[in-house]
Amino acid sequence: MLALAGGVGGAKLALGLARILPPERLTIVVNTGDDEIFHGLHVSPDLDTMTYTLSGWYNPETGWGVAGDSFETLATLQRLGSDTWFNLGDRDFAMHIRRTELLRRGMTLSEVTAELTGRLGIEHPIVPMSDQPVRTVLETDAGTLSMQEYFVKNRAVPTVRSIRYAGAEDAEPSPGFAEVLGSADVIVFCPSNPHLSVAPILAIPGVRDAIEGYEGCRIAVSPIVGGDAVRGPAGKIMGELGAEVSAVGVAREYRGLCDVLVVDTQDAGLADAISSVGISPAVTDTIMQTDDDKVALARWILTFNRHSGESRNP
Amino acid sequence: MLALAGGVGGAKLALGLARILPPERLTIVVNTGDDEIFHGLHVSPDLDTMTYTLSGWYNPETGWGVAGDSFETLATLQRLGSDTWFNLGDRDFAMHIRRTELLRRGMTLSEVTAELTGRLGIEHPIVPMSDQPVRTVLETDAGTLSMQEYFVKNRAVPTVRSIRYAGAEDAEPSPGFAEVLGSADVIVFCPSNPHLSVAPILAIPGVRDAIEGYEGCRIAVSPIVGGDAVRGPAGKIMGELGAEVSAVGVAREYRGLCDVLVVDTQDAGLADAISSVGISPAVTDTIMQTDDDKVALARWILTFNRHSGESRNP
Repeated sequence: MLALAGGVGGAKLALGLARILPPERLTIVVNTGDDEIFHGLHVSPDLDTMTYTLSGWYNPETGWGVAGDSFETLATLQRLGSDTWFNLGDRDFAMHIRRTELLRRGMTLSEVTAELTGRLGIEHPIVPMSDQPVRTVLETDAGTLSMQEYFVKNRAVPTVRSIRYAGAEDAEPSPGFAEVLGSADVIVFCPSNPHLSVAPILAIPGVRDAIEGYEGCRIAVSPIVGGDAVRGPAGKIMGELGAEVSAVGVAREYRGLCDVLVVDTQDAGLADAISSVGISPAVTDTIMQTDDDKVALARWILTFNRHSGESRNP
Repeated sequence: MLALAGGVGGAKLALGLARILPPERLTIVVNTGDDEIFHGLHVSPDLDTMTYTLSGWYNPETGWGVAGDSFETLATLQRLGSDTWFNLGDRDFAMHIRRTELLRRGMTLSEVTAELTGRLGIEHPIVPMSDQPVRTVLETDAGTLSMQEYFVKNRAVPTVRSIRYAGAEDAEPSPGFAEVLGSADVIVFCPSNPHLSVAPILAIPGVRDAIEGYEGCRIAVSPIVGGDAVRGPAGKIMGELGAEVSAVGVAREYRGLCDVLVVDTQDAGLADAISSVGISPAVTDTIMQTDDDKVALARWILTFNRHSGESRNP
């Protein structure tokens, strides 16, 4: 299975999938469009959220960073004159220091990610979407902003006018991504932000074509439930870009890319509208609060895919 | 005044001097031969000891780092597979992260040091000996070691056969050092390790000549008291290199460079032997335990220099 994921929502489903599938049957491909250099260090927010979630280090209270982390380094950097609007804990800093050190030694982001996740005991491959830099850039009424400037520094307040993925045209899928793109038995779009988490992955040359031409089952889980994002600015951004803020809007984003859109039970009434977009709706509970919720949704998707495969190949 | 200093001992006297002299009358030139890259970050142990001492951040219990610091980042780096034999606290890390970031932006080590010390409220100029890399390298019976490998990783256990200062031939005094070298009314050799702290400074082309030809008063404080170093491996190394481990041995190291060697009262009996080396002995209490001790020794040196000047210019 190839799971495409961004940050928190994607990591929740990925955790569920990783609890069920053995490492050789799941590759988690993660958005790196949010990566940014802070204090001279390479920070990969989505890779870290995924890594912390799968290693059990994740902080559910904040939605970022390491549970129980302290902030001595950041407080001191502020004292030393650094711009510290992006929160980084002391343990979190170790991740960025080590990543930066290994990248400077010439390792690729894929190699570094494999090294770091392996050290934390994660057996499932977590793969950056690309080893080349792709940066999500938002044109807003507050000017041109990086993803973190928009989301953290400006608390997702500015109105988004357009989004581009700088560097995507010169990037290529990471080796692990390219490999699973050609061999996966199913592709799952985790419930991540279509514009900020999934679109950067699709912007890499060849990826959209490969998924559009993919012959297996492609299942997306809607990050929009009941008219807004479960978490984060996905709903706000969809609305600002003129899309319908609903699972139907998500279906339109994924037209041609997905066969099935899994929507929450409270959106069961949207099934016909989703069908009219050319995507099959599937309804279940998609809100993942506990780890049991995550495993349950993952299991539901696997079961659905198996039955769907049986119906395709009777 | 130009004060030449290494780590702990030098910083003690420098603190005393800084409590008495206004910033425009004291420049503290610090050894950078111990600098080393850890985790991809530029660590300057002696600059940091000086900075922490003068800012009140110094940890008197350890002799390095920031008082009350925590070690979450280092513990996590160890977990991530990094080699963590060199202790670095979370606040300490901020210093190295910021220094590295500013150096990568193209600032010189002098500029970075001025920025960092200024942020911590230090008014007296703390100046690296050079903006170019000079690295103290020890040939030992355990192989070729950097200063930190010898001192920290190997706990100063290996026998030292020779010491060189790699890169010194291509280095030049930092701008602040060069300026004060030509204008200082007095030069003070702080009680630092002659081979590991002062010799790297002297190894920079032009420095030894400038001090040898200097016409003002040159006063050294012996780091060896009662037959061993007050702190650190200075005594051990002097012995291994064939020198007498005493204030007389220190006098021989500084022959031609110093006019006066200040020795502790317990070494008063060495006065004649020091005189025979061609350096005037001066006796006072040199063990600095409290801040009052540091100020008292600094005041003694200033008073001695004034009287000495009067006797030279009656």
